[in-house]
Amino acid sequence: MDVRMERDSMGEIAVDANRMWGAQTERSLHHFKIGTEKMPRELITAFAYLKKAAAAVNGGLGKLDAKKAEAIAAAADEVIAGKWQEEFPLSVWQTGSGTQSNMNVNEVIARRAAQLLKEQGADSAAVHPNDDVNRSQSSNDTFPTAMHVAALIAVEDTVLPAISQLKATLAEKSKAFSDIIKIGRTHLQDATPLTLGQEISGWVRMLEKGERNVKHSLEELRELAIGGTAVGTGLNAPQGFSEKVAAAISDLTGKRFIGAPNKFQALTSHDEIVFVHGAFKALAADLMKIANDVRWLSSGPRCGIGEIRIPENEPGSSIMPGKVNPTQCEAITMVACQIMGNDATIGFAASQGNFELNVFKPVIIHNFLQSARLLSDAMHSFEEHCARGIEPNREAIARHLSESLMLVTALNPHIGYENAAAIAKAAHKEGLTLREAAIRSGLITAEKFDEVVRAEDMV
Amino acid sequence: MDVRMERDSMGEIAVDANRMWGAQTERSLHHFKIGTEKMPRELITAFAYLKKAAAAVNGGLGKLDAKKAEAIAAAADEVIAGKWQEEFPLSVWQTGSGTQSNMNVNEVIARRAAQLLKEQGADSAAVHPNDDVNRSQSSNDTFPTAMHVAALIAVEDTVLPAISQLKATLAEKSKAFSDIIKIGRTHLQDATPLTLGQEISGWVRMLEKGERNVKHSLEELRELAIGGTAVGTGLNAPQGFSEKVAAAISDLTGKRFIGAPNKFQALTSHDEIVFVHGAFKALAADLMKIANDVRWLSSGPRCGIGEIRIPENEPGSSIMPGKVNPTQCEAITMVACQIMGNDATIGFAASQGNFELNVFKPVIIHNFLQSARLLSDAMHSFEEHCARGIEPNREAIARHLSESLMLVTALNPHIGYENAAAIAKAAHKEGLTLREAAIRSGLITAEKFDEVVRAEDMV
Amino acid sequence: MDVRMERDSMGEIAVDANRMWGAQTERSLHHFKIGTEKMPRELITAFAYLKKAAAAVNGGLGKLDAKKAEAIAAAADEVIAGKWQEEFPLSVWQTGSGTQSNMNVNEVIARRAAQLLKEQGADSAAVHPNDDVNRSQSSNDTFPTAMHVAALIAVEDTVLPAISQLKATLAEKSKAFSDIIKIGRTHLQDATPLTLGQEISGWVRMLEKGERNVKHSLEELRELAIGGTAVGTGLNAPQGFSEKVAAAISDLTGKRFIGAPNKFQALTSHDEIVFVHGAFKALAADLMKIANDVRWLSSGPRCGIGEIRIPENEPGSSIMPGKVNPTQCEAITMVACQIMGNDATIGFAASQGNFELNVFKPVIIHNFLQSARLLSDAMHSFEEHCARGIEPNREAIARHLSESLMLVTALNPHIGYENAAAIAKAAHKEGLTLREAAIRSGLITAEKFDEVVRAEDMV
Amino acid sequence: MDVRMERDSMGEIAVDANRMWGAQTERSLHHFKIGTEKMPRELITAFAYLKKAAAAVNGGLGKLDAKKAEAIAAAADEVIAGKWQEEFPLSVWQTGSGTQSNMNVNEVIARRAAQLLKEQGADSAAVHPNDDVNRSQSSNDTFPTAMHVAALIAVEDTVLPAISQLKATLAEKSKAFSDIIKIGRTHLQDATPLTLGQEISGWVRMLEKGERNVKHSLEELRELAIGGTAVGTGLNAPQGFSEKVAAAISDLTGKRFIGAPNKFQALTSHDEIVFVHGAFKALAADLMKIANDVRWLSSGPRCGIGEIRIPENEPGSSIMPGKVNPTQCEAITMVACQIMGNDATIGFAASQGNFELNVFKPVIIHNFLQSARLLSDAMHSFEEHCARGIEPNREAIARHLSESLMLVTALNPHIGYENAAAIAKAAHKEGLTLREAAIRSGLITAEKFDEVVRAEDMV
Repeated sequence: MDVRMERDSMGEIAVDANRMWGAQTERSLHHFKIGTEKMPRELITAFAYLKKAAAAVNGGLGKLDAKKAEAIAAAADEVIAGKWQEEFPLSVWQTGSGTQSNMNVNEVIARRAAQLLKEQGADSAAVHPNDDVNRSQSSNDTFPTAMHVAALIAVEDTVLPAISQLKATLAEKSKAFSDIIKIGRTHLQDATPLTLGQEISGWVRMLEKGERNVKHSLEELRELAIGGTAVGTGLNAPQGFSEKVAAAISDLTGKRFIGAPNKFQALTSHDEIVFVHGAFKALAADLMKIANDVRWLSSGPRCGIGEIRIPENEPGSSIMPGKVNPTQCEAITMVACQIMGNDATIGFAASQGNFELNVFKPVIIHNFLQSARLLSDAMHSFEEHCARGIEPNREAIARHLSESLMLVTALNPHIGYENAAAIAKAAHKEGLTLREAAIRSGLITAEKFDEVVRAEDMV
Repeated sequence: MDVRMERDSMGEIAVDANRMWGAQTERSLHHFKIGTEKMPRELITAFAYLKKAAAAVNGGLGKLDAKKAEAIAAAADEVIAGKWQEEFPLSVWQTGSGTQSNMNVNEVIARRAAQLLKEQGADSAAVHPNDDVNRSQSSNDTFPTAMHVAALIAVEDTVLPAISQLKATLAEKSKAFSDIIKIGRTHLQDATPLTLGQEISGWVRMLEKGERNVKHSLEELRELAIGGTAVGTGLNAPQGFSEKVAAAISDLTGKRFIGAPNKFQALTSHDEIVFVHGAFKALAADLMKIANDVRWLSSGPRCGIGEIRIPENEPGSSIMPGKVNPTQCEAITMVACQIMGNDATIGFAASQGNFELNVFKPVIIHNFLQSARLLSDAMHSFEEHCARGIEPNREAIARHLSESLMLVTALNPHIGYENAAAIAKAAHKEGLTLREAAIRSGLITAEKFDEVVRAEDMV
Repeated sequence: MDVRMERDSMGEIAVDANRMWGAQTERSLHHFKIGTEKMPRELITAFAYLKKAAAAVNGGLGKLDAKKAEAIAAAADEVIAGKWQEEFPLSVWQTGSGTQSNMNVNEVIARRAAQLLKEQGADSAAVHPNDDVNRSQSSNDTFPTAMHVAALIAVEDTVLPAISQLKATLAEKSKAFSDIIKIGRTHLQDATPLTLGQEISGWVRMLEKGERNVKHSLEELRELAIGGTAVGTGLNAPQGFSEKVAAAISDLTGKRFIGAPNKFQALTSHDEIVFVHGAFKALAADLMKIANDVRWLSSGPRCGIGEIRIPENEPGSSIMPGKVNPTQCEAITMVACQIMGNDATIGFAASQGNFELNVFKPVIIHNFLQSARLLSDAMHSFEEHCARGIEPNREAIARHLSESLMLVTALNPHIGYENAAAIAKAAHKEGLTLREAAIRSGLITAEKFDEVVRAEDMV
Repeated sequence: MDVRMERDSMGEIAVDANRMWGAQTERSLHHFKIGTEKMPRELITAFAYLKKAAAAVNGGLGKLDAKKAEAIAAAADEVIAGKWQEEFPLSVWQTGSGTQSNMNVNEVIARRAAQLLKEQGADSAAVHPNDDVNRSQSSNDTFPTAMHVAALIAVEDTVLPAISQLKATLAEKSKAFSDIIKIGRTHLQDATPLTLGQEISGWVRMLEKGERNVKHSLEELRELAIGGTAVGTGLNAPQGFSEKVAAAISDLTGKRFIGAPNKFQALTSHDEIVFVHGAFKALAADLMKIANDVRWLSSGPRCGIGEIRIPENEPGSSIMPGKVNPTQCEAITMVACQIMGNDATIGFAASQGNFELNVFKPVIIHNFLQSARLLSDAMHSFEEHCARGIEPNREAIARHLSESLMLVTALNPHIGYENAAAIAKAAHKEGLTLREAAIRSGLITAEKFDEVVRAEDMV
């Protein structure tokens, strides 16, 4: 391996000559060989937006040479475009302030900016990771800033569209099946009827609420820590830096951000992330319920409930037709379990701040972005490969409805409660349908029965 | 024990003659001897509001005899007033729909209403738990309705005021201590200074955000399941029942409620509770951080940080003065742990609905109301017995500030970075203060040092 | 209220004259008005065992007057017998070391011992809470000692017997139903057959493993912190105190205890409780699975799976016979959710020790004992009111088996895979049973079919 | 992209010609684009051991051609050696039985075995994924088998050695510092003294217990589901297959495995994994405590506790010497948070089995193996980069000890409790050391004071 020597305040260290990173990234690689989880891409992208915005603001305030500022912006753009993905190799399990990833970004952008300046024929092409790229900033305010930027983008651009799409598909199903009357079930026991459309409308409403909760809670993410620097006082940051950088990031991302009104909170609390993830958890709970309903309703083919059919995506049984394993339901319910666990991790980690800093930032954002990715991907997958293909099994639905004894209540006004109950009891005991038992009782004719026992009047 | 025989559809059962409850409550007592947790009082109160509202609406619609409706209302008022607390003995660990507690309320109110009618000289004083008190309702819509009513009252009347009070007390402290400059700490290591007022302002901001999150999320609780009856279709409930009862409950409680727009969701999802409890969890995480800061800042008296003093409420050490155990901090951090666990329970339980009903309702509301109680009580206790009495230990604060080496950065513009670093290194090595080392270096005079090294310029 | 004045190192305080407790209990009542959860009875009992044992050991070592030691023992016995239950009113949410509950026990036992001495005509009847009852002890070693004693008793005397009983009942069912062949289900889809006895044998095995895990893990609880006093060094405790008290508690309780080999760990870590509760959680996960199977297998009566019948304990539907809500399943699955949450609380709290003490002890033991209570009560209830009454619905089982297409595999050796698959496909498409489709295909006779397609050969 | 057409029971599908996998893997890739988490390498390796063992047993029983069996074994060996890592691209978030990963392994091994046979000049080189590699097996028994094999290897080969190493290092420190007397701290307040060696011995004991708990609990993992096939009855598996394969895997891995005595439990419960992870959680709680102690004890350099020094691995502050951020502590405490969350996920997922299968297997093993990896890596990292370099700051330790007032208790026997307390009070009030205040009181001479107030007699 070809190496070059890099320096930081601790001295020299050898870095692979083909790599863009510098001394501090290299030291982190050496000291944190923990797990396989890398700092999430989404966070690196958010950092790049931040570095570009900070360079522009520093440039505008005369704190940074204009050419350097431009070169930094250009380098940051390349990072955003995904050009340097291999250059951010650090583990999630590093320093709890995320300093090393902030420095990783500073080092890569500084090196790349210097290359660009050199290509442009600049005399002196040195761009300093700290003095230039990190100017007016500290890891302590940049990392939480990048957390919010990455989180908001993930929620707005992936989670919300996925909810919306699944909601739309289920809303169509609800409408399409609005005339299909089926037996209701409470406590897993037969209950009064409803339409399949109504049943699905409950799922749609859950997604509407999930969407609303996520939307409300994400407002919290708009507040950025930038400008707080090391402890929240903003030492070494120029006046107005926070607002200006927030505005610049808003421009770059097309999302609205503001400077956090209190930087001490912004460095040491992550209640925003906890709160948004609470909305994720509520959504996950609903997704679990919906997916469970889908797989139970499609259970069978012969010995289950079997009231709906779902797409057959993989071989179920090679010899037994109709065995369609509800694998999309399984994937999304596993995701729901993961969200529950991630929620515990995030809440715990967020509670562990001390004095001017919470040093559990990487684990918090790792879990948050994983949840966002899993929720959105799983909803898309479930929508495309399952929900879209849900079809009623009208025969099974009708058979259940006609076999059920719950419709007996409709006889009350006509033959009295006691007689109705006796008919139901006879049907239950002898394994008859309600209609058969009613007619056999002599208390009502077949015609009358069909006239008054109408599930459609009960939904 | 004197008994009377009570009847339900399963036959007769003996009930203590002194008790107000009926057959179904008695059966539940017999079958669910599990744990010591009773159905929460707050929920019984909410049920009483609901029964009163339903009686009024049923009366107004001609579905219930006016005298009966009035008697039910009067009986419900007594329940609300706490007169019959011993009559609601059922365990949390019962049927998952809470049917038995709905029937407990129906039975007690029916019996009491009948007594009241009899006292008024009514001819026929029978009030039926199902036909009258539960009219137009089902356990499946009343229980979730009572959940939301109880939860909203608990949040608005206890949690929010407690946040507000603690926030106000800390805001005063923040203001009072706005001139006290102290060392900052990140990674538990000495960092640049800030004021004690700024440090506390971060806590205030956390509470502001906690308040905002709780307020936003509780909007979800305004939607009531009432009117959905057994499966969400509203079978057996008169037209408009949902809206009318919601309006009546709003009048009775002074809180705004509406009928849930989709009853299928309202019976089977509890995303609202999960979401609000997510806001509780974010608050708990912040409270943990605040209380931890308070106890670390008051640690000592000699061998800790000792920058603040907190009230001495109990004997610490009989012989050693100044040992003040931060017991209020300990209570509230234990509460925070409980909230984290309750959050896991609630999320899990909420995910387990099937078809037209979630049958984990009692465990959900039990945990939610416990959390609300613990949070509000613990914040009140912490505010009264700890926060209010926080005082700075100015001596310790000043000593730390003067001993710290972090102020060395202020020398950079005057003697250069290299010289400043050398002075800091000398101070560290020889155990000197920065001032001592600076003067000894001959690079700066004592006067100049005092002029330029001013922590107040760094905050 | 009649009061008497009590003193501690902070001065005087008025206590209700009818109460047995003293100054420190009273101060705690005043300062910790948080929640409704009281320090668990089981823990108070364990404390009484400890105080009795400590008095005996102190007496034997000449550290405590023999008469006082006897009186303390007699008073402790009364506490164990439940005579003074109202005298232990303190909240779980108090000082995190549980000092106040240790003092509550010291105060009550001291007062009662003094009364007993006085009744016996002793000249000087004063018994001091600290100097006598707490002699050679500290809250810091007594509280964790009482935690282990209470936890071990709860596990051995309630949880393990409950597992054992449920296991025995299910083992009987497994045996009784060993000849009932039924359809298997994987992914909720029809699969190859097994016997109902086999299916239940899986539940029995889960309970066996739960029992084994709990038994193994509880060994950890045998180590007692006693003898460590304030910080683990044992300052002020006589030589051998730890082993002697552990032996005395073993004698009193009939359980084996030893002095913890390292007292520093014993005061500051609660890994034992976390580990045992992990076994509880594994058990809870299995109970959830078992109870879910029971309610799904008994779902119906007409539109579910309905392969077993469970006892009808409460009115399901007044008019519809056969609607038996699986309420015992619901109670125990709610308990399982609570165990999951308690597990999170305990793990979190146990991780928060600092230096020589973990000050989250009350919340840890509160959750642990609640879990023990809920698990044992819920298993008893489920056993008595549900498991014991499980009966097969042989008709439904037979119908599912005969309708299923999974048995087609048995035709392979006789007519070849392709033909068998074609028959299954035809049956699926036309809604025939496998037998009908096979005969109709002309590839096999009815006799041959009945000879070769035998589910009993597949289990 | 060059493609070849692959077939399964659903028909043809195009696969990249350079890839070793077949139709079912390809379908899974298409249908499960969820998240970035791949099925863990450790699990694939375990599968390879299983496939090799099964081929040998099938070969030995005459169920599989001997040459094929050998080729399968050779192919499996290559997988174990890591040669085909890129060929196992499937997501964790797939079918909940893990069928698709079982098939992925079957397909790759089948293809590679066929290549090997062909290279050896075999006439017919076809090896079938199902009929040969999966012979006598089902996804439903292979996946849980691979889970246990992978989990046991991870625990024995990575987690236990890491505990052991950290324990040894700390034990050395404990011994090395056994003569350093320091102030104790409870409730974060100064308490009676102990030695630094004693303090660290508590950590060592925690690790001993963690080791013991993990060792005890992992016994559960020795039971393998293999032989249960689709529903636990073992249909299509030869007699003795379970025991034979378990024995073969034992030989291959050098770990002891047995066939699970009850296969119904083995397919549908994962209490073993839950239980072992409970031991992980207890360990994580202790690691959090240890790492927190380390960072608090090393806090400073001037304004913290500063009683120990830890290695400086990265630049702390470029200008301020002595600011050593405890980054290894931060990494391991973040890991502890993740373990807590993973524990919640696993417990939840394990509770969700139905009938003959639990379909949350991939999420369970993903979290378990992540926890094992994180725990072992983080302990190694902490040991190497932090624990090994812990050194006492004797000056700070001595200063705290001499400043503390807790030693006043040593004066009691000499001047009486009242006088001792008065001295302490004076010292506290006037900011004196105890020694200064004692001498000033005139009650004791300096010589006497030094003779009787000896912290070394209190430890």
